[in-house]
Amino acid sequence: MRMYDLISKKRNGEALSREEMTHLIEGYVRGEIPDYQMSAFLMAVYFQGMTKEETAIMTQLVAGSGDMVDLSSIEGIKVDKHSTGGVGDKTTLIVAPLAAACGVKVAKMSGRGLGHTGGTVDKLESIPGMRVSLERDEFFDVVNSTGLCVIGQSGNLTPADKKLYALRDVTATVESIPLIAVSIMGKKLAAGSDCILLDVKTGSGAFMNTLEDSLALAQEMVSIGESAGKKTAALITNMDIPLGNNIGNSLEVIEAVETLQNRGPEDLTKVCIHLAANMLYLAGIGDMETCLAKVKESLENGTALQKLLEMVEAQGGDINVIKDVSKFEKASVVKEVISPCDGYITFMNTKECGIASCILGAGRETKDDEIDYSAGIVLKKKTGDKVTKGDVLAVLYGNKEEKMQPAEKQFLSALKIEPHPSVKEKLIYARVTIDGVEWAD
Amino acid sequence: MRMYDLISKKRNGEALSREEMTHLIEGYVRGEIPDYQMSAFLMAVYFQGMTKEETAIMTQLVAGSGDMVDLSSIEGIKVDKHSTGGVGDKTTLIVAPLAAACGVKVAKMSGRGLGHTGGTVDKLESIPGMRVSLERDEFFDVVNSTGLCVIGQSGNLTPADKKLYALRDVTATVESIPLIAVSIMGKKLAAGSDCILLDVKTGSGAFMNTLEDSLALAQEMVSIGESAGKKTAALITNMDIPLGNNIGNSLEVIEAVETLQNRGPEDLTKVCIHLAANMLYLAGIGDMETCLAKVKESLENGTALQKLLEMVEAQGGDINVIKDVSKFEKASVVKEVISPCDGYITFMNTKECGIASCILGAGRETKDDEIDYSAGIVLKKKTGDKVTKGDVLAVLYGNKEEKMQPAEKQFLSALKIEPHPSVKEKLIYARVTIDGVEWAD
Repeated sequence: MRMYDLISKKRNGEALSREEMTHLIEGYVRGEIPDYQMSAFLMAVYFQGMTKEETAIMTQLVAGSGDMVDLSSIEGIKVDKHSTGGVGDKTTLIVAPLAAACGVKVAKMSGRGLGHTGGTVDKLESIPGMRVSLERDEFFDVVNSTGLCVIGQSGNLTPADKKLYALRDVTATVESIPLIAVSIMGKKLAAGSDCILLDVKTGSGAFMNTLEDSLALAQEMVSIGESAGKKTAALITNMDIPLGNNIGNSLEVIEAVETLQNRGPEDLTKVCIHLAANMLYLAGIGDMETCLAKVKESLENGTALQKLLEMVEAQGGDINVIKDVSKFEKASVVKEVISPCDGYITFMNTKECGIASCILGAGRETKDDEIDYSAGIVLKKKTGDKVTKGDVLAVLYGNKEEKMQPAEKQFLSALKIEPHPSVKEKLIYARVTIDGVEWAD
Repeated sequence: MRMYDLISKKRNGEALSREEMTHLIEGYVRGEIPDYQMSAFLMAVYFQGMTKEETAIMTQLVAGSGDMVDLSSIEGIKVDKHSTGGVGDKTTLIVAPLAAACGVKVAKMSGRGLGHTGGTVDKLESIPGMRVSLERDEFFDVVNSTGLCVIGQSGNLTPADKKLYALRDVTATVESIPLIAVSIMGKKLAAGSDCILLDVKTGSGAFMNTLEDSLALAQEMVSIGESAGKKTAALITNMDIPLGNNIGNSLEVIEAVETLQNRGPEDLTKVCIHLAANMLYLAGIGDMETCLAKVKESLENGTALQKLLEMVEAQGGDINVIKDVSKFEKASVVKEVISPCDGYITFMNTKECGIASCILGAGRETKDDEIDYSAGIVLKKKTGDKVTKGDVLAVLYGNKEEKMQPAEKQFLSALKIEPHPSVKEKLIYARVTIDGVEWAD
């Protein structure tokens, strides 16, 4: 089998067989297929796509290229949750406790932030003492004893994906829906849960800017998951506006705690309830109505908050900051962003808001940058809100005086203030399962 | 400027500016742009194409990446001729003397054969003593004294093309019309003639199998040539049947000599007269009728044959084998291919005929293979001919007994013999200039 023929086949719009796909992925990981042939293949995939079968096979090969986590020593049904990333997306910190409180096991590996999007692992690390690198046995023990554990990626997980992603990143072949689906689902399959719930973000702060692309990605990923024998579903949720009000690491933990205290922002609370209910549904806890009721109950009676406390404690974190969020270390510089005019906020370019938060120190531009955990933005007004000149639109937090003005400028440039309000967008657009798409009302 | 952005731009169907194209080609030649980025770019070009401006700029950059031959020390108008390659294509050996006999200067660098197509330089080397590697000064002297000289590529010509072609060859990006046009025309521009006549072959033995693709390539190349200030035209000629009757190196020289003696096959003679007349036309010798008449005269009065003799002598070749072609070294093994049935030859897969000749030793599979100059095929029947069972279809020549049977099998597999004749195809389909396409009657 010659790599040339595989490139040529894909270029001509044909599908690769299982044998050919195996040669491709295994040969590439072993270094037998050079980068210059793989990048030509990836560009051909960008134009010609892949069949559902090809995508499923490639994902399984990517998953199997490194360690496959065996969660069988954890009792119960393990449900994973993945968000395609956004701004202010602290859902894992809320959803994992909600699901665990309802009897589902959450043994989750999360990522770090890069660019305008944050990462759950960074947010957890803003809790003093919190350990996110656990040995496998301790990881299993925490899940068995508390019902949940969230750590960073460990071990040699999906080396094929690492190598492919690094190449795609420099050859303009990232933006291919089947390749994105393979990359995400390869990691999810290797992570070993029984069920997978996907939160596919759509809009100006998301990786997928259009509903059409988000739907296609959701369908592709659900198809891959089900092909691999995992119960899989996806919610398509709005990222044309930051989720909740807080952006930045400890600011997001604070908002997550408040949400688990059932006094969080309405949008964030609603998305988290639906995500958690879908995890329960995948685990076979009951019909959707039952699952929603159970999740709401765990929110109202405080059992979900209790789960977060148990997890933080088990992972060495200081539970005092969770019990009293005012104990989080404070940013030394605070600046209010004032509305320059009267009107309605009709659009917040969410990616640009994320970048403003990065400027304050909350994110990384390159993976070696250090994070300022207390930096970030608290939104006081969001899309749809009426504003009057002089109103506080947001509060910026940071520790570097010189970053305040550029961050303020960046944040203001993300907002559109117009004389008339815009049409309110949906928070949850659709639910995608192997049986089809259910559009939200 | 980042290569990533150039790939992304091309991938999205946008055109690169002159500055961007310069960064691309110069950066690649200097080794600053890695192969894996260039191959992704080339695959994007395969799908998105290039504008006429991009193609013209890229060609000029490829031409300028190495030595640019300065032919100004040669008096008169220098006209180059290029064939996209075929089987039995010995036209340069006939056309260059015809044009030179009519006062045009031909200072030509030719290639070697690879795969099923032969190369003029190999054919010339079948003449004992013939030198095809001349120093630049001697090359110019031969053209000044005789009117023509044909040598192999020398010096550091178009290193960008060499590097790009080697990459395209292993990444399935050869079959892109703008990239093919850039590769051919880059070499032609570097070779320094004032005018360029292109012979774009079409059909089963050609690089372009369809008339549509051949026309597109011809138009692309003419546009590039004219953009660079060279008078350029193309003939689209039939390669769905071998040209003439002889395939193989010395066999083709013999047929070229016979053609210059005005006793060559009708198809070959006609194509050569038209190619040579078009070279004269580009050089401004007169209108097409005048040019055709001049070429025919030089064929009939022996002045063109005289030019070939002068060139061979000037390049150290043994003119006795030209004066008496029976003096060429003979193949030791000869085998007749007999028709297995009655009927009409309705199709000769020309590439497959070329491969049969390669099996006999006339060609190379890899560029390090040695050539057997006396090996090849003489066709006795061609497409359109009526054949009777037992007729000699062709005679195979070689020096390895064990190659005869595989070559015969290969040759027979290329023929289709059916009860009724097929429709006769045209020999010359069209003439392409910057003013448009003239279809042949």
